[in-house]
Amino acid sequence: MRAVDIIIKKRDKGQLTAQEIEFFVRGFTNGDIPDYQASSFAMAVLLNGMTPFETTDLTLAMARSGQVLDLSKVVDIAVDKHSSGGVGDKTSISVMPMVAACGLPVGKMSGRGLGFSGGTLDKLESIPGYRVDLTTDEFKKQLKEKGIVLTGQSLDLAPADGKMYALRDVTGTVPSMPLIASSIMCKKIAGGANAIVLDVKVGLGAFMQTLEEGRELAELMVDIGRLAGRKTSALLSDMNQPLGAAVGNALEMVEAIETLHGGGPADFREHCLHLAAHVLFLGQRAKDLTEARALAEKSIADGSALKTLRMLVEAQGGDPAYVDDVSKFERAKYIEVVKAPRSGFISQVHARIVGEAAVALGAGRAKKGDPIDHAVGFIIHKKVGDRVEKDEPLFEIHANDQTKLAEARNEVLSAHQFSDKSVPPLPLFYE
Amino acid sequence: MRAVDIIIKKRDKGQLTAQEIEFFVRGFTNGDIPDYQASSFAMAVLLNGMTPFETTDLTLAMARSGQVLDLSKVVDIAVDKHSSGGVGDKTSISVMPMVAACGLPVGKMSGRGLGFSGGTLDKLESIPGYRVDLTTDEFKKQLKEKGIVLTGQSLDLAPADGKMYALRDVTGTVPSMPLIASSIMCKKIAGGANAIVLDVKVGLGAFMQTLEEGRELAELMVDIGRLAGRKTSALLSDMNQPLGAAVGNALEMVEAIETLHGGGPADFREHCLHLAAHVLFLGQRAKDLTEARALAEKSIADGSALKTLRMLVEAQGGDPAYVDDVSKFERAKYIEVVKAPRSGFISQVHARIVGEAAVALGAGRAKKGDPIDHAVGFIIHKKVGDRVEKDEPLFEIHANDQTKLAEARNEVLSAHQFSDKSVPPLPLFYE
Repeated sequence: MRAVDIIIKKRDKGQLTAQEIEFFVRGFTNGDIPDYQASSFAMAVLLNGMTPFETTDLTLAMARSGQVLDLSKVVDIAVDKHSSGGVGDKTSISVMPMVAACGLPVGKMSGRGLGFSGGTLDKLESIPGYRVDLTTDEFKKQLKEKGIVLTGQSLDLAPADGKMYALRDVTGTVPSMPLIASSIMCKKIAGGANAIVLDVKVGLGAFMQTLEEGRELAELMVDIGRLAGRKTSALLSDMNQPLGAAVGNALEMVEAIETLHGGGPADFREHCLHLAAHVLFLGQRAKDLTEARALAEKSIADGSALKTLRMLVEAQGGDPAYVDDVSKFERAKYIEVVKAPRSGFISQVHARIVGEAAVALGAGRAKKGDPIDHAVGFIIHKKVGDRVEKDEPLFEIHANDQTKLAEARNEVLSAHQFSDKSVPPLPLFYE
Repeated sequence: MRAVDIIIKKRDKGQLTAQEIEFFVRGFTNGDIPDYQASSFAMAVLLNGMTPFETTDLTLAMARSGQVLDLSKVVDIAVDKHSSGGVGDKTSISVMPMVAACGLPVGKMSGRGLGFSGGTLDKLESIPGYRVDLTTDEFKKQLKEKGIVLTGQSLDLAPADGKMYALRDVTGTVPSMPLIASSIMCKKIAGGANAIVLDVKVGLGAFMQTLEEGRELAELMVDIGRLAGRKTSALLSDMNQPLGAAVGNALEMVEAIETLHGGGPADFREHCLHLAAHVLFLGQRAKDLTEARALAEKSIADGSALKTLRMLVEAQGGDPAYVDDVSKFERAKYIEVVKAPRSGFISQVHARIVGEAAVALGAGRAKKGDPIDHAVGFIIHKKVGDRVEKDEPLFEIHANDQTKLAEARNEVLSAHQFSDKSVPPLPLFYE
């Protein structure tokens, strides 16, 4: 078998066999197949596509390119939840304790933020001492003993994917459905999941801008899961405006914790309950979604979800007092309430603009390895469809630098659009 | 400007500007743009195409990636002739002396054979002493003084093309019309040509297998020539069967020389006269093709073409006695006449199979730098459409190894197909 023949086959719209895909991924991972062949292959895949069968073979080959975690001796069913990323998406921090409180063990490896999209690990590190670098043994032990883990990727999971993603980024081969779907799914499979709930974000602040794209990606990932023998379900949720009110690491932690206290913004609470219900149902802790939803609601009402979060923070070395008293979180030096410049109905709060403004404030990183400022960010008071009066508080800026604050004010004001006529609220979920 | 944005533009079917193409070619040549970006770019070009304007910009950028020969002080019009390569194509060796004998100076840089297709330099080196490594100054001096040069590529002409070709070969990006056309034309332009006659081969023994592909390539190269301000014309000629009778370096030299003596196979002589007429007409040595054709015929009849070849060989250090007495050429140890296995009409002499059999005998090289055997090859006695009787001589094998001879016999026999019904001869030229 020769790499060039595999490229030629895909170039000529052929369907690759599992053996050909395995050969290519293995060769690329160990360096036998150079970058210049992998990049022309990626461009051929982007332009000519792959069937769900080929995409599944690619996913499995990438999952097997490194160690594959085996959780079968640790839990009866290893459930994972994946969000395709967005602005204000602190869902994992609330949903996982809810699910674990209902008796479904959840061990999750999360990522850091990149670009306008935040990352769960960065948010968790707003709690002093919280460790996101558990070893595989620590991961398994905590999952077995506590039933909940939320850490970074300690293992070299799916190294082919990391190498391929870096190459795609500089060769114009990022926006390919088969490449995106296999990149997400291979890490879930390598992480040991045998049941996966996918939260695919759609809209201005998501990688998938249109509902059609989001649906295509969701369907492809569900296909991959099914063909790879994993129970998989997908939700399509809105990311035109930020999720909830808080954008920024510590601010989002506070919101996630308040939600478990029974508070938090209505849209975020509803988002979490809906997602938790799907995870519980897929994890076979409820006979249907209605029962699963009731379980999730109960975990908030009886304080068990909050207790589980406290236990998680303590288990990973963080100070659990932060969970009980959110005033302990670091506050930014300057907090400014920006007032509505006019009356009207909110017709847009552009999620991507808000996300990028948060990065500019220091809440995120422009490139890998940049330091971040946990305290800065925004509280968005009004959502699309809300009525606002002139001079009513529109949003809050939390900043540690006055120049950046002024820039952020202009940016986030420009993210808001107003209408004289009433505007329907955005749906939380599309499907 | 960033390389990745240029790749993305072509991936999304955009039309690149001259500045973008220049930036990419320059960066690739000097190493700023790595191979993995060039290969994904090449795949995007292959799958999404380029307009003739983009292809011309690419051609000129590659021509300018190294030194560009200026022949304006050497000759009034620098004519070049290019063949897309094939089996038994010794045309340059006969046509260039004919043209030069008619008063049109021709300085040509040729290549070596690769794969099943022979190379002019390898054929010329069958004459002991013949130098194919003239310096640029020697090239210009000989062109001015003798009016004819036939040498190798001494200058680093169009280095971007050499680098790109090596990359395309291993990344599945060879069969792209814009990339093939620009690769051919950039070397002609860098070689100083301002009038170019293209002989595009079509058929089983050519890179272009169908007439449609050949016509597309020819039209694109004529477009490039026109847009780049070069007078360019193209002929489409048949390469389903070998051209002439001889295949193999010394055997082809003998045939080319015999043709200038007034002999040679009818099809090869006609091919040369037709091509020479086009070169003379484009080089403004005749008012129309009829007059040009008459000049070419006269150059054979009056011996001036043969005299010019003798002068060329002598000027480049070869022994001119070979031109007068072809029995001086090295002969293979074993010469076997293979007889027709049956009577009938010849319906196919598969050029590629014959070419590959010649390589296997030692006449060509499987990879760059392999040594070659000048004496070996074939004389094909019958052409498509000819009637042959059982046991009549069908072809001759010239070999230096009996095992290889036996293999070649089987191969070249399999290249011949017979029909009971009469078969029309193949045309020499399609258009």
